[in-house]
Amino acid sequence: MTLQEQLQQKINLKTKPIGSLGALEELALQIGLIQNTLTPTLNNPTILVFAADHGLADEGVSPFPKEVTWQMVMNFVGGGAAINVFCRQNGITLKVVDAGVDFDFPADAPVINAKVARGSRNMRLEPAMTAEECGQAILKGRELVAREAENGCNVIGFGEMGIGNTSASALLMHSYLNIPIEECVGAGTGSQGEHFNRKKAILKEVSEKHHPQTPEETLATFGGLEIAMMAGAMMEAAERNMVVLVDGFIATAAALSAVHIEPKTRANLVFSHSSNEQGHKKMLAALEARPVLHLELRLGEATGAALVYPMVQAAVNFLNDMASFESAGVSNAD
Amino acid sequence: MTLQEQLQQKINLKTKPIGSLGALEELALQIGLIQNTLTPTLNNPTILVFAADHGLADEGVSPFPKEVTWQMVMNFVGGGAAINVFCRQNGITLKVVDAGVDFDFPADAPVINAKVARGSRNMRLEPAMTAEECGQAILKGRELVAREAENGCNVIGFGEMGIGNTSASALLMHSYLNIPIEECVGAGTGSQGEHFNRKKAILKEVSEKHHPQTPEETLATFGGLEIAMMAGAMMEAAERNMVVLVDGFIATAAALSAVHIEPKTRANLVFSHSSNEQGHKKMLAALEARPVLHLELRLGEATGAALVYPMVQAAVNFLNDMASFESAGVSNAD
Repeated sequence: MTLQEQLQQKINLKTKPIGSLGALEELALQIGLIQNTLTPTLNNPTILVFAADHGLADEGVSPFPKEVTWQMVMNFVGGGAAINVFCRQNGITLKVVDAGVDFDFPADAPVINAKVARGSRNMRLEPAMTAEECGQAILKGRELVAREAENGCNVIGFGEMGIGNTSASALLMHSYLNIPIEECVGAGTGSQGEHFNRKKAILKEVSEKHHPQTPEETLATFGGLEIAMMAGAMMEAAERNMVVLVDGFIATAAALSAVHIEPKTRANLVFSHSSNEQGHKKMLAALEARPVLHLELRLGEATGAALVYPMVQAAVNFLNDMASFESAGVSNAD
Repeated sequence: MTLQEQLQQKINLKTKPIGSLGALEELALQIGLIQNTLTPTLNNPTILVFAADHGLADEGVSPFPKEVTWQMVMNFVGGGAAINVFCRQNGITLKVVDAGVDFDFPADAPVINAKVARGSRNMRLEPAMTAEECGQAILKGRELVAREAENGCNVIGFGEMGIGNTSASALLMHSYLNIPIEECVGAGTGSQGEHFNRKKAILKEVSEKHHPQTPEETLATFGGLEIAMMAGAMMEAAERNMVVLVDGFIATAAALSAVHIEPKTRANLVFSHSSNEQGHKKMLAALEARPVLHLELRLGEATGAALVYPMVQAAVNFLNDMASFESAGVSNAD
């Protein structure tokens, strides 16, 4: 029997009707395969939140001012953001990474300095990153994950903070999946009415301006520093057989980039939730992903990844700790 | 400002776009209203699993033999069932209640004896319970919850074990909501093909045989001892301002009964998840419920209620612990 068959048999012989734990059964199978074992474990759960600014924010694609990126990073540092609350609740170590914020953080602030530049470039004028900047971001993402793996972490979630990054994500989705840009653009953190129409017009213009050829070029052209760093982090985590918790719309765009660059990354990705961004569902479908939660979140910060963690624990726990029909002396179905 | 307005304002001023925590925001509002406070707490979370046998099981409506009811109760006692695993994970006290199992449990087994009878009656021949039996079950459910409340529990989940109880639930749904019985019948724990057709035919016959007039009569006619006890438990929990976590199809049928008997119960009910039983979605819609999880569970045992608990915690925690835009010094949207 292959490991997959052995895992499926172990799941089927637990004291429950076959398939009755739904999505948790799929998760248990996936995690067993990632760790190449019938008895997976979850060690040192960690979440990295990558923050960066976006040149395109100068065009007013978000209703929030650009300063909110660094202000929210300071909120993470102060422990007052949603992601802090959910990480504390679920026993997850949270680390905040400056991938490219246009701000100098105080030297004593516990922010990991991985700054590649003070924000990406304005895509209306030029590609968001040069090939070198994008490559640097990917490499730093890889290095950060390698360090966590060496510290014993085998389950890691990724999220982001960056005013303007739903725009970058919509452009990545459009470019990788060849979906009309109109269907990729969502309200982001609250774009509405006239503002939303303007956002769509700008993204349409940007999408027609550039014609990247390779997956890496696409990421450099339409991405952002935090997105590229997340993509690198995901590729490294997959190579190291870690379980990867992908957050919402923007993290999924990073996952899409990672999978286009390195297809084998896909096997390690757990898609935490389906958000309210219209494009998210289509991106998930293209990745053949079955998101675990459907809470209509649209916050980012890895909040979905933190919230899904108890479901990941539940999947591992039922696989390890539930009795089988035989061991419990329970009669099986006819 | 009303408390509802104050709660909504508190939620809206947290450092996140308005509405971006989706279902968790609705939960936070509901729990604040249940506890009549801006700073809710969750104390001594407890789950009661009610077990009973069903006379209708003699007609072969389940692919599992009737003995599985008591065998699974012994599995709960031994700690090997899914509900044990999820309660341990989430710090929930689990108690198992014999509402009417056709078995004598060992005197030293930690099962709460609330046995009204050794199973309900065969509905193909007579109502499932007499009015007196049903009233006794409701009363015992109330007493059990009163005891938990007196011990300081303010959040309580309910689930069940009883071979044949998806049939009883389908009949309750049909009778309360006037939905054709064919649309209420699901596969239960695994009914398929010829067996499923037989189940449908039997339920159709039963549905045409009885014509209860009041909500209480409906519960007595088509319910079961564990379902009636759960309905009583829910009514009592609501009267005591407890947060009630409703599990899947069968617990929702109990909730439907409770709401028909005592409409104000509805305000306290948190619907944990939408299951794979086709009737469940319709019942939830009739209750104007927005279930939190969509994991395609169809196990019962209160597993959905145990799994949703971290989401309930997340709702309370963000409401209490997140910073506001002002306190964190973050700029709000235009």
